[in-house]
Amino acid sequence: MESLPASTTRPSRATPGALVIGQSGGPTAVINASLVGAVRTALASDLVGGVYGARFGIRGVLDRDLLDLHAEPPGTWDALLRTPSAALGACRFRLDDDTTLQALDGLRALGARYFIYIGGNDSADTAHRLAQAARAADYDLRIICVPKTIDNDLPATDHCPGYGSAARFIALATMDSALCTLTMPDHYPVKIIEVMGRDAGWLAAASALGQARPEDPPHLIYTPERPWRAARFLADVRAVHQEYGFVVVVVAETVRDETGQALGAIASTGVDAFGHHLLSGAAQYLVSLVIEELGLRARFDKPGDLQRMSSLAVSDVDRREAELVGRAAVQAALAGETDKMVTLVRVPGDEYRCEMGLAELADIANATRPLPPAFLSATGTSVTEAFRAYALPLVGAPLPRYARLGAAPHAW
Amino acid sequence: MESLPASTTRPSRATPGALVIGQSGGPTAVINASLVGAVRTALASDLVGGVYGARFGIRGVLDRDLLDLHAEPPGTWDALLRTPSAALGACRFRLDDDTTLQALDGLRALGARYFIYIGGNDSADTAHRLAQAARAADYDLRIICVPKTIDNDLPATDHCPGYGSAARFIALATMDSALCTLTMPDHYPVKIIEVMGRDAGWLAAASALGQARPEDPPHLIYTPERPWRAARFLADVRAVHQEYGFVVVVVAETVRDETGQALGAIASTGVDAFGHHLLSGAAQYLVSLVIEELGLRARFDKPGDLQRMSSLAVSDVDRREAELVGRAAVQAALAGETDKMVTLVRVPGDEYRCEMGLAELADIANATRPLPPAFLSATGTSVTEAFRAYALPLVGAPLPRYARLGAAPHAW
Repeated sequence: MESLPASTTRPSRATPGALVIGQSGGPTAVINASLVGAVRTALASDLVGGVYGARFGIRGVLDRDLLDLHAEPPGTWDALLRTPSAALGACRFRLDDDTTLQALDGLRALGARYFIYIGGNDSADTAHRLAQAARAADYDLRIICVPKTIDNDLPATDHCPGYGSAARFIALATMDSALCTLTMPDHYPVKIIEVMGRDAGWLAAASALGQARPEDPPHLIYTPERPWRAARFLADVRAVHQEYGFVVVVVAETVRDETGQALGAIASTGVDAFGHHLLSGAAQYLVSLVIEELGLRARFDKPGDLQRMSSLAVSDVDRREAELVGRAAVQAALAGETDKMVTLVRVPGDEYRCEMGLAELADIANATRPLPPAFLSATGTSVTEAFRAYALPLVGAPLPRYARLGAAPHAW
Repeated sequence: MESLPASTTRPSRATPGALVIGQSGGPTAVINASLVGAVRTALASDLVGGVYGARFGIRGVLDRDLLDLHAEPPGTWDALLRTPSAALGACRFRLDDDTTLQALDGLRALGARYFIYIGGNDSADTAHRLAQAARAADYDLRIICVPKTIDNDLPATDHCPGYGSAARFIALATMDSALCTLTMPDHYPVKIIEVMGRDAGWLAAASALGQARPEDPPHLIYTPERPWRAARFLADVRAVHQEYGFVVVVVAETVRDETGQALGAIASTGVDAFGHHLLSGAAQYLVSLVIEELGLRARFDKPGDLQRMSSLAVSDVDRREAELVGRAAVQAALAGETDKMVTLVRVPGDEYRCEMGLAELADIANATRPLPPAFLSATGTSVTEAFRAYALPLVGAPLPRYARLGAAPHAW
């Protein structure tokens, strides 16, 4: 595959325009599938002259750190479909007025007519600023975002690519880790599993998707949507322990108490460029509390980046949709759309199916979508059937059903 | 499948004897495969009258809490092959002289001639005490252990069933989590991954099995075999960060400094029945150190029980061997062997192959096998080719090779 002739890198409006694509924010197990969907669509279009990958998101444009994606060996794209993480690199970088104009200058210098940005809420903000500035400068730059976040907290779309795979990981991790606790309840009767999700409980809720019977773990789920109370937590743990002899708790890392204090605040490690507090330690805190207040042995699992990145639990539905939204973004840009994000629109019916839609970036930038009240039980510590009906199709192939022994206790 | 007639439950020595099987210690992803191998062999033998599962290991014998395994639906055994954790339940319970005799009485009352115990070092101790007591009491009870531990620290066997799957999980987890760090090196340049392994570094070493090039993560591995030094650790992290821009560290949860102090001692939660200190917090400690001393943002993943239990990373080699050692244990007991553990004996040659052997429990009980010096580099922070040659066959199917972009940086 040869490089483009130099003449196409600074096209007039009448010639094919270059397409620049970037990935931004926390990576996922399927964000590269969106890249593949977009790049293949761009490479196949006569309207696109030059397909460039911005390294480390918008910073690649600012730093003029681009890859010529025509030059990648053709086999790369199939392999990337199964490679977790953002192959272009990603960033958390907030554009201000100066850097917005600087990025626009860079794109103009490259002859870019299309800018595709794969990311979440913050990336929508970046893209929206660029789109507004381009419009103000009368620069025909078409900017389309591709939704991506394991947190599933973008408004306007049924769900976000990346969530289905992370949800599958958390559902399976909870099943497996809970089996471990069940096996030796006298050794460590209390297990805490700490999950991600920023200020929304979508991932914590997904821990319940492997439940086959109402009494199956996780027994208690704590999401950021409800304030956490120590006395209530301890009473809940004690009650479950008395009933089942072991307790599996799932806690979102951002859960806060009624005063707004994050459980993991002690272990806070800073603030990111968007002002988000970077927390760790919610599970460690709950473990200490259970040991000290209830005298029960407890330990925790913190899958950390594995839940967003594991190649082991990719949802086939999620990967396919990630590729489709990438493709749809380029198609929308070619059709003249700008300042929008591709959305997934669930089609009502017995069979799960989504169509592609478009939403205004202004409605998405910096906005978030919490878990709706109808998806959490009245106590807030378990999920409803409505949530299961929503989320199960997203995790792909059916979750395993494990064998149990115990058909015949031996009278002895 | 019908229950045994009552007359077979208290056989004379001339009649078929009952077989009792238990699982003990920390469960693994394949310990049930050993149970299936053993139970199917027992169910098929004319020499065995009655196959009973002891719930929660030897405690099932003491508490007379048994399952009649003839009565399980036949489909259970195939499903159990793919069910992580110990389906009978497990324990960490140390027999003393009284409970040894009590257990022996229970087994005698049941008409047991065969006792199969699936476990690690501590389980070998339990089985060895029982075997000695049975011999002293002139009770023809044949006791065979089945090796099981993710820690891979049993002497006398090439490796331990359970290790291959846990090693596969850790290798993949390191690959995936490291990709996440590589994607946003400016966001969190330092990643610490905390792994299990008791006092041996076999699992920590396995984190290197996914390396395709010498510079691939993990960059630094800390195992319990070498004393950890803060100054050296900080210098190592700083040097790797300067060279690659990001650092992936794998630390065994039991690493100690030169004074013998465990890194995670601050978060210690107690001591188990065998006197092992139960630690957590090594990774959290290293994260704090990196932030405070180097001013680099750091975070950690602690897969916890997922590494021992995940259904997602089972090694096909490991599962097959786990089933075979279970089968071999029953065959050995039927052949009159006792007070022994089944071992895996690697057959020299180009193709990986193991045969089954037997070792004296006295040589295994409470003993451990650290990572040999030849498997660690001179610095102690990486593994040798000898280790890779040893461990790669155990993790089963080839680890994935991920795609990379970057064929052609765009001159701009």
